[in-house]
Amino acid sequence: MGKMLKRLISYNKARDIVFNEWDKFLMDKIKIVPLLDALDKVSHEDIESPVDLPMFDRAAMDGYAVRAEDTFGASTTNPLILNLVDSEDIDEGECVKVFTGSKMPKNANAVVMKEYCNEEDDFVEIYKGVHPYENVSRTGEDVKRGDILLKKGEIISPYHIAILSSVGIKEIKVYDVNVGIIATGDELVDLEEVNNMEELKNKSKIINSNSLMLYALVKEAGLNPKIYGKIDDDKEKIKSAVKKAITENDIVITTGGTSVGDRDYIVEVINELGNIIIHGVQIRPGKPFGFGKINNKLIFMLSGYPVASAVQFELFIRSYFKKRKKIKLPLKRNIASELGRTDIVRVKIEDSEVEPLRITGSGVISSLTKADGYIIIPENVEGYEKGEYVEVYLF
Amino acid sequence: MGKMLKRLISYNKARDIVFNEWDKFLMDKIKIVPLLDALDKVSHEDIESPVDLPMFDRAAMDGYAVRAEDTFGASTTNPLILNLVDSEDIDEGECVKVFTGSKMPKNANAVVMKEYCNEEDDFVEIYKGVHPYENVSRTGEDVKRGDILLKKGEIISPYHIAILSSVGIKEIKVYDVNVGIIATGDELVDLEEVNNMEELKNKSKIINSNSLMLYALVKEAGLNPKIYGKIDDDKEKIKSAVKKAITENDIVITTGGTSVGDRDYIVEVINELGNIIIHGVQIRPGKPFGFGKINNKLIFMLSGYPVASAVQFELFIRSYFKKRKKIKLPLKRNIASELGRTDIVRVKIEDSEVEPLRITGSGVISSLTKADGYIIIPENVEGYEKGEYVEVYLF
Repeated sequence: MGKMLKRLISYNKARDIVFNEWDKFLMDKIKIVPLLDALDKVSHEDIESPVDLPMFDRAAMDGYAVRAEDTFGASTTNPLILNLVDSEDIDEGECVKVFTGSKMPKNANAVVMKEYCNEEDDFVEIYKGVHPYENVSRTGEDVKRGDILLKKGEIISPYHIAILSSVGIKEIKVYDVNVGIIATGDELVDLEEVNNMEELKNKSKIINSNSLMLYALVKEAGLNPKIYGKIDDDKEKIKSAVKKAITENDIVITTGGTSVGDRDYIVEVINELGNIIIHGVQIRPGKPFGFGKINNKLIFMLSGYPVASAVQFELFIRSYFKKRKKIKLPLKRNIASELGRTDIVRVKIEDSEVEPLRITGSGVISSLTKADGYIIIPENVEGYEKGEYVEVYLF
Repeated sequence: MGKMLKRLISYNKARDIVFNEWDKFLMDKIKIVPLLDALDKVSHEDIESPVDLPMFDRAAMDGYAVRAEDTFGASTTNPLILNLVDSEDIDEGECVKVFTGSKMPKNANAVVMKEYCNEEDDFVEIYKGVHPYENVSRTGEDVKRGDILLKKGEIISPYHIAILSSVGIKEIKVYDVNVGIIATGDELVDLEEVNNMEELKNKSKIINSNSLMLYALVKEAGLNPKIYGKIDDDKEKIKSAVKKAITENDIVITTGGTSVGDRDYIVEVINELGNIIIHGVQIRPGKPFGFGKINNKLIFMLSGYPVASAVQFELFIRSYFKKRKKIKLPLKRNIASELGRTDIVRVKIEDSEVEPLRITGSGVISSLTKADGYIIIPENVEGYEKGEYVEVYLF
């Protein structure tokens, strides 16, 4: 009775195959960009610090740079007096006025805060003793030369921008991947074509939200999306759309038509233009996931259902580029799963507990915006009990 | 002995003052943008769904739409036979061929998957009975008309794009705020001016990383940053830079010169151009935070220390726009704090425990890239004990 999924393979196997192809594929997909343009992109390299940070001992307060030993015993009732000099080094009994961030004079090893000093013409009364290196930011205290500041595969955050610029890094190698997005389905209408929802309803059409969601997801993964709009369930039309998109991009993502229905042409088309490597994975949602290659370019065939396609994107594309933060928390109630199948369950975190969201089908988009993250129930686990600790991948 | 911070106020009071000013200030800072341009911006409105989603009962599988009651008792050994019709409604004993996503014919209330059917010329053999609404996505199952899909103040995610486009929303009102960024300090050099780190070290200069970090932070908060470079510690130069930036933008953020040192001119300048509302908050790090207004535009005076300025940005700007996800987890070790002061402590999450990062000063930028988030120790708490549950704001 009809076509079949090629063969269902396990999630781990599918992941290994896809990630291995990513590894090879991305070797030369590099772009060097100015630091600020690298924000939210993914680093293609480990970056080591070329210098210590601070590069020199610095005053951490406004005040007077001193030799700590010259201040021992100083107090309000017993102030000590140091000669005020304007020099790049000091001798016994001398001090230099410094501001926060000033380079420490040679031989000085501490700063007395100005609140504890009284400056006169050429000397300073010290009301409080300091320990060696008190109020001093020492060379290399923040970063040591050779420290890894950013790892290959990390997302570049504002804080990375801060630390990388501090050590003089002006440019970064990031992944540069152009992604064409195609949606198939007679029932679809592109958002810009919609004038009236009532009319849409009467025509039994639905809006092609997948292309827009994928555009945003691709962008957030640090890649460069381009939308090719919706294509009818017509084999020749799909074929020419895929050809165009694969020529103009490095990878192509399609949605819809991956099952084995009479109108599911995508797999056939990719098989004719290149080859299918995966068709069908033991996951829920997202079983009809397909993956193939055309001339060493990658094709990801995602479901038409928004939630299924979002999950497939997460597992096989996003999680290669941007790892989610993970935390272990106890479950608020039991979750069942089936042996031999990997389940991806959207969850909410309520205080310190994990609440699985009621799942009524892979079409329920609202479950995505409501979720704080998801858990993965491996194929060799029949489910989890209330109170068990599970690893949550945070959105 | 020198100038003083105006008066130190509590974190809660400072936060209330600043957020109240944000509320008033932002009333008319609205831009209407196409849906895709709203990604990662902050919504200025609650958006209700104008329709049910699905808009009509849909087939959730490829197969045959039936009246469930006509299939009761069907099995492989006892197939039932239904007449195959091509119609928008069915009568008793009839079925219609449907694909996933097809509108259900009138009077049909279930779909028999094609795997359990055998189609002949004008009839279909049914091998499995279905319950009412089995394999049907019902009208409004995902979203009900009037449901809030996006709240004012929420960050617009790819999943919001999916659900908003699904109900036909083409444009969104987002916050539109231009932010000028000024860094002050004789010791600073802008990154693009740096040719050689050794030379920088010999001149005892440091790189103006703050402006770049703030550019990135402002952008991530959904606002529009513009950098005005570094300005020397010269009152007139600072004054003219602030004047230019405040004319060209809606708000201005400065870094450096907020303390009470001889070279700390920012507060004086703002006092002359407008008025200072806050100068000094009982927080650590970030005590010398300043906030003022010039002609109803807002001025945020942040510290020169990267970590202090990052924390001030987080507390008084970012957290107004983009709320962090919060989770409650137990502490891995004690943390001390001082009564009367609010501490912001960077932490790592290790499995299910919170590990405070060793803090050696507000200059330690690497503590930001290493942290998973932070906790806030309120002024009325002297610290937390190992094992106590604390609320972590996740980066």
